Amino acid sequence: MTDDVYDIDTASSALGDGVRHLDLTDRWNTPLGRPNGGYILAAMLRGLGDEIGSDSPLVAAITYDRAPSVGPGTLTCRTRHAGRRIRSGEATLMQDDRTIAQLSASFGERSGDRHLERGAPPELPPAESCVDPRGHGLPPGGIFDRVDYRLSDVPGFFMGSPSGESEYALYMQLRDGRPIDRPALAFLCDAFAPPALELEGVSNSMTIQLTTHLYDVPAPGWLAARFTTRHVTGEFHDEDCELWDSTGRLVAQSRQLALLV
Amino acid sequence: MTDDVYDIDTASSALGDGVRHLDLTDRWNTPLGRPNGGYILAAMLRGLGDEIGSDSPLVAAITYDRAPSVGPGTLTCRTRHAGRRIRSGEATLMQDDRTIAQLSASFGERSGDRHLERGAPPELPPAESCVDPRGHGLPPGGIFDRVDYRLSDVPGFFMGSPSGESEYALYMQLRDGRPIDRPALAFLCDAFAPPALELEGVSNSMTIQLTTHLYDVPAPGWLAARFTTRHVTGEFHDEDCELWDSTGRLVAQSRQLALLV
Repeated sequence: MTDDVYDIDTASSALGDGVRHLDLTDRWNTPLGRPNGGYILAAMLRGLGDEIGSDSPLVAAITYDRAPSVGPGTLTCRTRHAGRRIRSGEATLMQDDRTIAQLSASFGERSGDRHLERGAPPELPPAESCVDPRGHGLPPGGIFDRVDYRLSDVPGFFMGSPSGESEYALYMQLRDGRPIDRPALAFLCDAFAPPALELEGVSNSMTIQLTTHLYDVPAPGWLAARFTTRHVTGEFHDEDCELWDSTGRLVAQSRQLALLV
Repeated sequence: MTDDVYDIDTASSALGDGVRHLDLTDRWNTPLGRPNGGYILAAMLRGLGDEIGSDSPLVAAITYDRAPSVGPGTLTCRTRHAGRRIRSGEATLMQDDRTIAQLSASFGERSGDRHLERGAPPELPPAESCVDPRGHGLPPGGIFDRVDYRLSDVPGFFMGSPSGESEYALYMQLRDGRPIDRPALAFLCDAFAPPALELEGVSNSMTIQLTTHLYDVPAPGWLAARFTTRHVTGEFHDEDCELWDSTGRLVAQSRQLALLV
């Protein structure tokens, strides 16, 4: 047994034939009082991985159909392909006979030592000299008690004056430095306020679809994250996230399409 | 009836209960002699849209499980959610009782006039003064007869000397300027040689997963495309595509995770 909150809250139990029971707790709620989408993704990814027989997801694409509720849900998993290098499958989360989210993911181990990086981590002061946004406009409770954040400055939105610049750079880790596996990387890609909040007249954003690339388990220490919205058209916008580990490696990246509300 | 090759080759016929018959033709083959992944995506997206009742996909995420073959296939579609703004569903393509690809897509009409663009189209000379790569290393036949390309220079890979720079900028359109709908935008996101070919020792790349954001039907004329591989780790790499229309608007963007071979 574990007493780790992340382990407990993202676990699901097998009922046979690819069906699993999953309890969504209120410990990962957003300020809107619903379980965070990244938390749902991590729990679904762990459950699908258990069914597929791999704890090494490489890419995970999730579509959010309806707002989730705290409470029980049913995860129905299907392994589509078990190849030599890549295993792929899908999972659907239902609550009260309604589809909440659908996940497609591919699993596999990295091999080979080729490396190319055309990007760079965000430039941030040392974490020790950064600000903890809790107590500076980031409401306590739910997900914001499960993740530690450090920023060079408190974002404008949190102080009631959006900056107009739809980008956030910050440090992130699971609370108290709990080690981060690949499903937790997927969670962290959607575990901060959307940078679209820095645009004038935006009060919230709902994710429609999120795809995460999970390259590697990070080295211990803070992750440096960059969240960017580059493109808004009508009420739709993109949001990219990059996660860089303490050795300067890109360990995950994601892109989502979301709806301004 | 239509005599347009794109219309004919991406059409599927409804058999009832969300099941559709789809014939993959050899007119969109890659140089490896298999139907191009973007072609399969466009055909699946059109079929799923017919079942869902929308020709306006916003985001489409496809996982390729096995290499497709020219010939018949069965598309099984499911509408998961028909909301006021967004409709979501999934489709699986089978050939010979094996899963070839799985698609999840959300459909909806844009509304509102908010606009933000932090990126910019690639800088290219006028299309009239660019090179047609067919006859300069781009093999004729299949997909390369269905799309028109124009580049400022012939890419190094095509001349046997990879440049080391994993980025391509070029003009693209469907052959002879055929109008481009949203499924065709999704096709074009995977309709050129991967820029990873410009890296030393790379001879090919296979897409594992591809997510496309489809913002708008483009204005008539050439699309300006930017294909970039920013990150390679082991044998896995990303590839981003941006498609900008002739009025300078970003009309689609995509990211894929692929395997170097």
